[in-house]
Order: sequence, then structure tokens, then C-alpha cells
Amino acid sequence: MNDEAHKATPEIGLDQVDLMNRYWRATNYVSVGQIYLLDNPLLREPLKAEHVKPRLLGHWGTTPGLNFIYVHLNRVIRERSLDVLFICGPGHGGPAMVANTWLEGTYSEIYPAIGQGEDGLRKLFRQFSFPGGVPSHVAPETPGSIHEGGELGYALVHAFGAAFDNPDLVVACVVGDGEAETGPLAAAWHSNKFLNPASDGAVLPILHLNGYKIANPTILARMDDVELRSLFAGYGYELFFVEGHEPIPMHRMMARKLDTVLDRIRAIQQHARAPGWQGERPLWPMIVLRSPKGWTGPKEVDGKKVEDFWRSHQVPVSNARGNEAHRKILEDWMRSYEPEKLFDNNGRLLPELAALAPTGLKRMGATPYANGGLLKRDLVLPDWKGLALDVPRPGSAKAEATRVLGGYLRDVMRLNAEARNFRLMGPDETSSNRLDDVFEVTNRVWMQRIEPYDVQLSRDGRVMEVLSEHLCQGWLEGYLLTGRHGLFSCYEAFIHIVDSMVNQHAKWLKTSRECDWRKPVASLNYLLTSHVWRQDHNGFSHQDPGFADFVANKKADTVRLYFPPDANTLLWIADHCLRTYNRINVITAGKQPAPQWLSAEEAETHCRAGAGIWEWAGTGKGEDPDVVMACAGDVPTLETLAATDILRSALPDLKVRVVNVVDLMTLQSNSEHPHGLADEDFDALFTKTKPVIFAYHGYPYLIHRLTYRRANHDNMHVHGFREEGTTTTPFDMAVLNELDRYHLALAAVERVPGLAERAKNLAAELHGKLAEHTAYVREHGEDMPEIQKWNWPQNSATKAGD
Amino acid sequence: MNDEAHKATPEIGLDQVDLMNRYWRATNYVSVGQIYLLDNPLLREPLKAEHVKPRLLGHWGTTPGLNFIYVHLNRVIRERSLDVLFICGPGHGGPAMVANTWLEGTYSEIYPAIGQGEDGLRKLFRQFSFPGGVPSHVAPETPGSIHEGGELGYALVHAFGAAFDNPDLVVACVVGDGEAETGPLAAAWHSNKFLNPASDGAVLPILHLNGYKIANPTILARMDDVELRSLFAGYGYELFFVEGHEPIPMHRMMARKLDTVLDRIRAIQQHARAPGWQGERPLWPMIVLRSPKGWTGPKEVDGKKVEDFWRSHQVPVSNARGNEAHRKILEDWMRSYEPEKLFDNNGRLLPELAALAPTGLKRMGATPYANGGLLKRDLVLPDWKGLALDVPRPGSAKAEATRVLGGYLRDVMRLNAEARNFRLMGPDETSSNRLDDVFEVTNRVWMQRIEPYDVQLSRDGRVMEVLSEHLCQGWLEGYLLTGRHGLFSCYEAFIHIVDSMVNQHAKWLKTSRECDWRKPVASLNYLLTSHVWRQDHNGFSHQDPGFADFVANKKADTVRLYFPPDANTLLWIADHCLRTYNRINVITAGKQPAPQWLSAEEAETHCRAGAGIWEWAGTGKGEDPDVVMACAGDVPTLETLAATDILRSALPDLKVRVVNVVDLMTLQSNSEHPHGLADEDFDALFTKTKPVIFAYHGYPYLIHRLTYRRANHDNMHVHGFREEGTTTTPFDMAVLNELDRYHLALAAVERVPGLAERAKNLAAELHGKLAEHTAYVREHGEDMPEIQKWNWPQNSATKAGD
Repeated sequence: MNDEAHKATPEIGLDQVDLMNRYWRATNYVSVGQIYLLDNPLLREPLKAEHVKPRLLGHWGTTPGLNFIYVHLNRVIRERSLDVLFICGPGHGGPAMVANTWLEGTYSEIYPAIGQGEDGLRKLFRQFSFPGGVPSHVAPETPGSIHEGGELGYALVHAFGAAFDNPDLVVACVVGDGEAETGPLAAAWHSNKFLNPASDGAVLPILHLNGYKIANPTILARMDDVELRSLFAGYGYELFFVEGHEPIPMHRMMARKLDTVLDRIRAIQQHARAPGWQGERPLWPMIVLRSPKGWTGPKEVDGKKVEDFWRSHQVPVSNARGNEAHRKILEDWMRSYEPEKLFDNNGRLLPELAALAPTGLKRMGATPYANGGLLKRDLVLPDWKGLALDVPRPGSAKAEATRVLGGYLRDVMRLNAEARNFRLMGPDETSSNRLDDVFEVTNRVWMQRIEPYDVQLSRDGRVMEVLSEHLCQGWLEGYLLTGRHGLFSCYEAFIHIVDSMVNQHAKWLKTSRECDWRKPVASLNYLLTSHVWRQDHNGFSHQDPGFADFVANKKADTVRLYFPPDANTLLWIADHCLRTYNRINVITAGKQPAPQWLSAEEAETHCRAGAGIWEWAGTGKGEDPDVVMACAGDVPTLETLAATDILRSALPDLKVRVVNVVDLMTLQSNSEHPHGLADEDFDALFTKTKPVIFAYHGYPYLIHRLTYRRANHDNMHVHGFREEGTTTTPFDMAVLNELDRYHLALAAVERVPGLAERAKNLAAELHGKLAEHTAYVREHGEDMPEIQKWNWPQNSATKAGD
Repeated sequence: MNDEAHKATPEIGLDQVDLMNRYWRATNYVSVGQIYLLDNPLLREPLKAEHVKPRLLGHWGTTPGLNFIYVHLNRVIRERSLDVLFICGPGHGGPAMVANTWLEGTYSEIYPAIGQGEDGLRKLFRQFSFPGGVPSHVAPETPGSIHEGGELGYALVHAFGAAFDNPDLVVACVVGDGEAETGPLAAAWHSNKFLNPASDGAVLPILHLNGYKIANPTILARMDDVELRSLFAGYGYELFFVEGHEPIPMHRMMARKLDTVLDRIRAIQQHARAPGWQGERPLWPMIVLRSPKGWTGPKEVDGKKVEDFWRSHQVPVSNARGNEAHRKILEDWMRSYEPEKLFDNNGRLLPELAALAPTGLKRMGATPYANGGLLKRDLVLPDWKGLALDVPRPGSAKAEATRVLGGYLRDVMRLNAEARNFRLMGPDETSSNRLDDVFEVTNRVWMQRIEPYDVQLSRDGRVMEVLSEHLCQGWLEGYLLTGRHGLFSCYEAFIHIVDSMVNQHAKWLKTSRECDWRKPVASLNYLLTSHVWRQDHNGFSHQDPGFADFVANKKADTVRLYFPPDANTLLWIADHCLRTYNRINVITAGKQPAPQWLSAEEAETHCRAGAGIWEWAGTGKGEDPDVVMACAGDVPTLETLAATDILRSALPDLKVRVVNVVDLMTLQSNSEHPHGLADEDFDALFTKTKPVIFAYHGYPYLIHRLTYRRANHDNMHVHGFREEGTTTTPFDMAVLNELDRYHLALAAVERVPGLAERAKNLAAELHGKLAEHTAYVREHGEDMPEIQKWNWPQNSATKAGD
């Protein structure tokens, strides 16, 4: 491999190197100051104990390397007029991002209280990791960031997500060698198989081998260069090494390699954007920066190796307030940057240094790509009603809900094709989840070989499929945070794979909302299908409805949980979710053929309310019921209606009310969630005193948790998933978990006071049905015909008595 | 790279190839039969509709490749007398494992109802993916497996976990090219940096490139061989390709390569186990098997490509019952294996074929390594009381709880060093989590370069650190499932990274328990520390106590949640957990210096009960309280005691009871969880009518969820984590979430009937304290001295009045 083959740009001069080195010293100085100093920010006087913070919190180790990269990116942005988004994988190196954005001026523009000059510098230092100040990590509060880097693994996948459909953007992504050990990061290198050099931007990975994690060497740093080159060549990258520790040679090398790499990127893009491109996947360049951990910091403390070792990870000199010798080390260290040669008398960066930063929106702290809400354009959405199913009476149509949604998503794709701001992500399941209609207008994106017999693969597809939920999630996060839209369709059970990523995204959204300069981004939308009740080819390992529980722990203003009972409700909800922002919307819906209940108009009314009485299914409009049969989820709704049918047929004088919940957050009190029903509205649905047999899609506890403050809570009898599962028939799954019509009807019989005695025959019959079912499926391997064929009685209008 | 360099074993003869090919046909025949047939298992008569199952569920695509590998492993096991554990990454290829273990005889030994011969074969076919039968995936029910392969990503990491400390074992691990796209799998290749060829067994990865996932090509299969070789050379493996589709040449090639590879493994081990080994990491061999998806199945169905394409993924001929043409394809397909040349008249495998399988415990279906409970030896545990802190009075000692535990773990390491059956896993946090004492007796294992200045790294370390929670979790699962013990110490917030793995392990345990032939394995033990309340260097991204909520959804007989309030309780609980089996034990404990409350004896009594009244902290023994101050977790306990101190000082006539909960599952009803308290015992602690101010470590909802059936539930006022966090002081974190002593005391004042008026002055004082706190930390950056110094009053015995 010849690093230099395509070199085109002349080397930078020594005087410029000297200026850049001084700028770098300024970034390092401002970084150390944040970790340590309460006062005396320019060291105008000898450092005293009271100038040092009582609690020293932060991470020095990665910071000088991040500063080094940032300073060099500044140069190429200026010289090439680039738009660069900086993804700081080692997000705990917060001091670096804060230092650089302050030095380039964006920090003070966004936070005028932290001005330029000595007083601003004092405040900048003081606020870092300080109560009421800013966190130690790169965070939503940090200008120029879309990435926290607290939970490691997602830098590169975020970078690719940001680059898709942003052809003029270069995403410079620093990957720490600690983070590189994680699974999501190890998989993310393959994202180059999905990035189109013609229509997407470029990702420039900068693998920062500083050698150590918290207390260990790193795997990649201790591999020899042959193995390392081989690994990344295998991933499809051309490596450019920048190695050393002497600042001046390192600056020269970094500048040279960065120019080479950017020339390479330009050449790749020009080639791909010129006529005649054959669609081949390019060999993208990447940089390996091998620099000492804690570079330029204390070499030793208390006789122990610190620089270029893991002891520099956090605070290299731990007792600078209490211990004079430590304080001396700190002072010498800070003075080694020669602040007097960096700042003027007022504490402002000297003009010849300030001139090294880009200006305006080219500054990495100011790029709108890092504040995606600024760039976001609303989607053009089709009229969902035009796609709705005709359902003149409940049960009069049968359909696969997700297939109907597929038609809607196809139209969303079509209407926004030119804007190129909508993508569909999924782990190889778009077809399996019956969303095939989208392939009428687009394909799966694929930058590898395409065979003549392949179907629905192309270089410009807008459906992204890879067998990694981590990549789907991370790409989508990066895409949304840079101002675009999308939907992640996933098998319900396996969305837990990204629990922790969802967690971090929810945290990002929560904090972003507190930063008024951050504009809202499109919501993170999930379609969970192939759900617990219909696993078919798979079994117990594919059965877990617990993601709802997980999400429900997040801040109420962030999360929404939707359980549309049929296709038209699914359409309305999907349409609604695509209009929202700063939310995490979780839609759970089945993909199997099922009876349909609501017309488009009824679906709209029902979904807007979030929960409501289905008068047509109950025994009498407005009357006080003996029992409330409640449901949330498509299979629970089906079983509840079938149970209601049984009850009404067998016990004509029993007053039954059916309540369907489509927006689960309506169950919570309106003091806890903005979608929560007021107590009186809740009571109007569920009564204050009557038994409620609640068939819920997931774990029953969630319903109890959401309703524990409601008057009628003690009367809630929730049937849901009890962790009983295997490969079996659909109805048998319901029976195993007692969510089936027979168990629900039995529950009603047991819970309505005085009914058990009166309905003895019915109860016996239902127990008989259960036994009959079990015997039948074990004999025949499919559900009884009466189960397969059941539908809501088509004379129900009469039966409902209205 | 020269595949053949070390070839030592002579090639197998053509007659043996022919036999192996017939055996392979038998495995394929038995696999197809499982997916399709209800009856007519030997095709003695023409295939009729009623012979075909009504619901066709399963995965054919991967199955012939798995069968191919299994048959070849059988040969080398016999010839070399190997112990081989087969990890079936594509676990959805359940038919393959069932077919092979049936043909080798283990299936019928374990399940006598499924005998050998025609009737057994009929039952074997019928039960597959059939109600009351066996699931479609490799599962706990499947002999020879420790791995489900439903949620993809963990095959290789399980394989390494199984190989550690099993020097005589070869783990043959099939990795599908779909699974290879996942993050955890991509990271797991680096496990070779932690495997010691002298004292560990060998992992032989077999990367099965069958080209396709559900509806897409795979990334690795569409890379060219140069990139592919480069990638795996970079990971540290030597590749051996077996490619083609003609059975006979493929058998010859596979046999030859397998011999080469096993010779290589033997040579590596001999070298490493001989005197003079320098500890270098070997270049481990691996096989790349490139064979058609759905190999030997129908080439086309309905005019569409099926074999060697993704359409063969599940059921290649979908309507074999209803459509005669489809049924003909199925029959031709099954007859192409020539069952009459494979089975005798009774439906038994012909003797010359049966002789190809290993015998006894060498059979992969019978190896005890796949039923780890058979091999498990109890740990030798130290006397924890000997390590307990001296705590003569509550608050009379201060300690870091996890550091005390470190001493205990050191002794566990020492006492079991010879047995080599205990490991400690963690993502680079053993020291950060204050467990350093273990390094007195062992090191971190590290097979890369070791520098002179490195500390606590060695080739034979028993602490495993890698910055991947997925690897830690997966290694430990593999280690436990093969009969050993361990503990995973993790930052609390980031354990969510492995939510889905824990989920799958819990499912495995649940189903294993239903298989009486599977013997119990050691529990999966977590120490969650660096928890939400003490993040120090980090902030909001590191603050999430929700793992408890996630785990609590699992089956009650599997999960335990422990919140030891101090060091001695932590010791007792850790000691207890290491004695349990088939459990998931989650221990949450802090690492910061904190006052200690209980002596060893008191800790034991308290932990055995799981929850109890701390008489010494309350106002009177046995008296009926005005308010119950309850707590679970170390910081909540500290704040509750401080709040109690405030209340008792300010309101001497208020009757306060302090209840500490160490085993969270005691809160649940004993009908729901075996550790749950009976209602009367619960009421004896929490009363039936008095306000309970409950300070809980995590999200408050969990307490409501666990206690919603209790009489006093409406009086539970839970303070916990409300998603308010950042980098700040420890006490400020509590204040932000209203878990601090002032808020708790205020809650008591508000909730005790009639107290608000009487305690107006106290309330004003507490509000003042809160304001004073906020002002102080924003000024000084640390907590007020009175907060930092607070301890339980040492004259408390007098105050408690007993």
C-alpha cells in the first residue's frame, strides 16, 4: 500500500506548522484548565490551592489527541471550504470539544454568558463538571455534536447515518481504540458497503490508537501493523498512519496525510459523480493516529508512568488542591503551554491564532449538520385515507396490517424521493414484515457485487437492510440528528438488542430539549412486528414484548407506545408519528392476515382519543356495564372480541363494555404523561368499581404500573405474556399464556360478582373448549377450524341494540 | 498463505467418502422429513396430502451445510478421539441438530419415546415445530447444545467461553454469514487475544458462507476472497477454504482441510504446552465453507431460483399439502436422498453408516460439555465472616463496599485456582470498581504483547477485561453453561447493552429447567456498581438503574435482585449467589467510601430475611409507627437514615420505623415469587395503613409494580431515579431526583396525617436546607461539610430507647 500515491496538495510551511502547534497548545491549555481550575485562568499569579477545584472530574487522556485532530481539521476546512461534521467517539473527552468551540468563538455565541477573554475563560473553566455547569462529556449542550460518546460503540455508525444523502458533507469520525473493541463499532466498519459515493457524503474514520483504556492496553493498539493493516484492508479501507509524539513532526505528518486523504475522497467522489461510473465500491481512506495517551501531560506522577499510559485516562494529578507537589506538577504542566504566548492581555486568543479557525457556519461548532433541526424539512405525506381499507362493518374485511402500511410507506418514499430525506431501516426483514410495496419505488441499497438474479438491490436504494439491529439503529439516529426522517422496522423480540442505544438517544433528546438553540429533530419511529403472538417459524427465543416496559421508563415527554388493533388504525398512527418530532414512537402491529375492525373515519376518531369504548361490540350504548373487557394490541383485541361474543351469546343479560386502548400512555395519569387521561375520563371508560378484564399485548405488569393510581386499579385483571412460549399454533400461544378468548371469558365469569354460580355451565363449556383445543392442535398441528374462521358476528349492529 | 503447509494426515479413501456422503444424505433426509412430514416417514408409499403437515415451519437453507459439517466432525472425532462441542450459530437450523443426534442415537437415549426405527422416525418428524413437540430452533431440548442461535451474534463468544480452562476440548463453532454481520460476532473474533493455547481448549470457527440471509445477500459472501482473507488475517486467523457444490469433491476437500486444521491445532497446543513456550499468540486456523444455501434442495420452485438463493431460507416448497405439483417437488427431493439405501426395513440407519458416528460420550449430542451441570464442581468458598468489617455500632466504620468484596473474590480465586473454574469478567473496570485485591492472586489475561511497564497482565490471568459488555457476557455464559462459575462486574448503566443476551440466557434457563436431563449450571451473577448515584467523572449517559426493571420481567424462579446497603451485606449476598444455580442474580452496590451499618451477624440475619425493620434506627421496638421510612440500595439507605435522624431530632414524639429491603423480590407476593413475603409478613413490616416513604435505588415504578397487590399499596410514596442527572456532586444527584434526606423528611411530614401543620417549622427549615445546598454546591463545587460528614448519631442506642 502506498500512502503517498495520489498526493496532490503541496506541503504546509513551517511557519504554519508553528502557528498550528501554538493553537494546539491553546486547546490543550483550555482543556486542562477546565478539569482543574476555579480561578486564575491565565496563571497570571502562582497557582494556589484555592484556584484548584475541590473535586477533579474529567478525562485528560484522550483530550490532546482530539485537540490535535480538531486543529488539523480546521486547516483543511479553511483551505478547501469543506463542510465537516466532527463525531467525537471518545465523548468523555468533553474538554476538547468545549475548548475548541470556545476558541473558535461558537461557544460564546451560543452561550453569551461564557464570553471571550479572561472572565469568559474563568467561567468556562469553572462550569466544567461543576454543579449547575456543563457535564464532563460531549453532550447535547456541546456545540457541534450529535454524539455523546458516553456509552461507547456508536461513533462510526452515527457518522455513516449523518453522511447518507448529504453528498457535500465530510464526517470526520474519531474512533477511540477502546471503543473499537465494542461489537457495534466492529460491525460499523462494514457501513462502507451501504454508502454511495455519488449521492452520499464521505466518512473519514480517524482511528485514534492512544494505546490504553481505563486500566488496560487496547486490542488494536497492541496488534502489529501488519495485522492492523490487514484487518482494515479487509474491512475495505486504505490506511494512512500518523505516528509519533514529537509535536512538530507530528503536525507535518498529520497535515500531509490529511491532505492526501481528502484528495483521495475528492477523487472518489468526482469519479462516482461523473458520467460512466459503474457503481463500484471505492476503497475509502482512513487515518490511524498513533499518539501517546495524555500527550504533553505529566510524564510521571508519584514515580509512576502517566503520559503514554493508562494512568493519564482521567485526572493525571489527583490532589492538586491539597498537595503542593501535585499542584506544582499541574502548574508546570499548564505553563508548559506558554499561555502568555497564546492569549493577549485580555485573555483573548492572539489574532494570528484565531485566524486559523474557519469562520461562520464552516466552524465545526457551528455547522448546521450538528443541529439537524435547522436543516429538517417536513416530509410530504400522502393522504392516508386514500390507502385505507374499506371496512363497512367490523370484521367485514381481512388484511395484513403491515402490508397496508407498506403501501403508505411506498407513497412516502415516492413523495420524498427528490428531497432524499426518508429511509427505511431493518435487519433483513422488510419483506418478511410485509412492507414489500416500498420496492415498487425503491430498492435495498447495496454497494457490493449484484448478481443478475438478485432482486430489489441497487446502488441507490433507500431501504437499508443489514443483519445488525445496532447498525440499523445507529444509522437512523445519525440520519435523524442531521435533519432527516425514517422508520426502523424490527422483529419485536430483537429490538432489545438496541435497548441501550435507545436509552442514550432518549437521554440525548431529553437534554436537547433543554437547549433552546437546538431545534427539534424528527422522531425515532419503530414498527415492531413479527411479534410475540405470531412467531410461526420461530419460537421462544423470538417471543419478548418487553421493549414497551423498557421505553416506558424514559421521560414522559419523549416516549409514545402505540398498539393499533388493525390496518386503518396502524395507518393513522404511522402518519401521525411521521409528523412528530423529538419523540420515540413505538408502534407494535402484526403482519398476519386478520379481521379488520374500523373504517378510516372510525380509526381516526379512535386514535385521536387514544382509547375508547367500542359501542358496537358491547351490549348497550352508555349503560353501566357489569364487566369491562379491555384490550391493547391486535391479537388481544381479536381475543377480547371473541370472548365478548361468547359472553354475549351465552349470557344475554350480562352487560359488557369493550374498551380498546391504542395509545398506551392514555392509561397513565395526565399528571404523569401528556397523553394521560384525566381521572374522570379514565373512569368514564373503565368505571370506578366494575371488574376490568384487560387483555394486553405484553407483560401484564406494565398495565398495573401505568394504572396504579386509578380509582379502579384493584379491579384490573390483566392477561398478557407470561413467558410461556415455543413454536406452536397462533391460538395455542394465546392459550399457553391465558390470553385466549376462553380464558378471558372465564375471567369475566369469575370476576363479575355473583356470576360464577349463574354461569356454571358456560364455565364448564369453556374449560371443555380449552381441553378440546389442546387435543386438537396436538393431533392436527393447526388450530381448530372454528378458531381459524371466527369473526365478529356480522349481525352485531342488531345485537348491540342500538 | 499456504493451506497445505503442515499437512500430516493422509487423505481419506473414496469408499469412506461414499459412506460419508450417504450418511450426509441421511441427515438431509431426516431434516426435510421433520419440516414436512406427518407420516409415511420412509416414503414406503407415494406421498399424499395427508402425509404433509398443515403448517410448514422451519428453516431449510442452512440445514444441509450444518449436516455436512456435523458428519465431517464425526469422522475426526472418531479418528482422533476428540472431545468436540458443536456450537450451531445458525440455531434456526434445528432440523440438522435433531437429525444428527437422532442418527447417532443420543436423541433416543434422552427421549426414549422417540426411538430408533420407523416409528421413532415418524414421531421425530411429527413432533418438530408441532404443538406439544419440539421447537424449530436448536434449543435446550436439543441434545448437544449450549446455544440457541435464535437471536444471532453470540455463537463465537459462547464458543470461546466454553473453551476457556477446558484444555482438552475442541469447540467447533459454525458462524453463519448472516450472524457475522452482527456487532457482537464482529467483536468476538478478537477473543483469540484472550485464549491461552496451553491451558485453554481450541475454538475452530467454521464460517459458513451460504450467501444469503432472509431476503438479501450477505456482506461477507459478496466480498472478494482477497478482502475476506485480509479481514480474517487481520483478526488473527489462518483461513482454509472449502468451496463448491458437487458433494463428492466437497467431501474430499472438507476432510482434507479439516485434517489440516486439526493437525495445526494439535501442533499449536503441543508447542504451547512444551517447556520453553514464550507465550506468543498462535495463528489459529479457521475454515470458510462456501456451499449453496439450501444445498441439494429444489433448484427452482414456480419458476423461481431457490437452491443457492435466499428463497431456500425457510420452507422451499410452501404448499406441499395443498398443491400436487409442490408435493411432487417435495417427494422427488426427498427420494433424491434414496432413503432405501440409507435405512433398513425397520427404518434403522444401515450399520455401515451408523458406524460412522462416534460412540458414547464422544458423540456431540452426548458430550457432557453440552450439559455443563454434569461437570460442575461447587466452588470452594472462603468464610466470608473472616473478611467482614468490624461494625460494633451502626455508622462506626466507613468503607468502600466493593473493595471489601474484592478481598472475598481474591480468596475465591485463590481457593479455586487449582480447579480453574472461576473467572471474573468486566469491561476494563475491575480496578475502577475497587475489586483490585483479586490482583494479589491473579492477573488480567492478555495474549498480546506485554510491555515491561504493564501491570497485572499475564498469559494466565483469570480476570477477563475487554471493552465490550457483549464479550464479557457471552464468555461468561459459555463458561457457565459448560459447568464453571463466574461473576460479571459492570457499570450499572451499561449493563443494558446486554439486555437481549440476558433475555436469551433467562429463556435458556427457564426451558432447561423443564428438561430433567439437563443438570443445573451455576448462576449468572452480576455486580452492578459505579451506579447512578455516584457517577463522578461521568454524567447523565452513565446514569440508568433500569436493568432491575428489565430483569424483573423474567420468570420468577430465575431472577433475584439484591441491593445490599453496606459491605457486610454485600459479602453475605455475594457468597450466597456463588452457591446458587440456574439463577440470574443481580447485585447492585456502590464503590465509594460510605458508613457501614451492620455487623457480620446482623448482616446475615438481615439478608436471610431479605427485608427487615432496623430497630436501632427507629423510635421504638415493636411499636406502631406513624410513618415507615423504607429503603433499598446503599445511597437510599444512607439518605433514609439521615432523614430519620432529622425527623427524630426535630419531632421527638413522631414514631418512625425504618425498614431496609435487601432482596427486592421480598416485596412481591409469595404467590408470584418464591422469595416474596406472605401478606402478613409484609404488613408486619410496612403496616396496612401508615404512610411509607420508600427511597429506592432505581425507577420508582418498579416498587409500585412489585407491591401493587399489597394492602398498604396506596400509601407507598416512592422516591427514586427520575431521569434527572448530570455531572455533579453526589448529594446534588440525590437532590435533583428528590431522593435526598431533606425531600424524604419533607415527604414524611406531608404524608403523616396532621403532621404538616405541627411540623411547619421543620418543613421551612428543610426547604431552606435545600436552597442552601444548591447555592453551596454551585459556589464550591462540592457538598456541604455537614452532608459529607453526616453519620448515624453514635448515641443512637439511647435514642432508640431500647
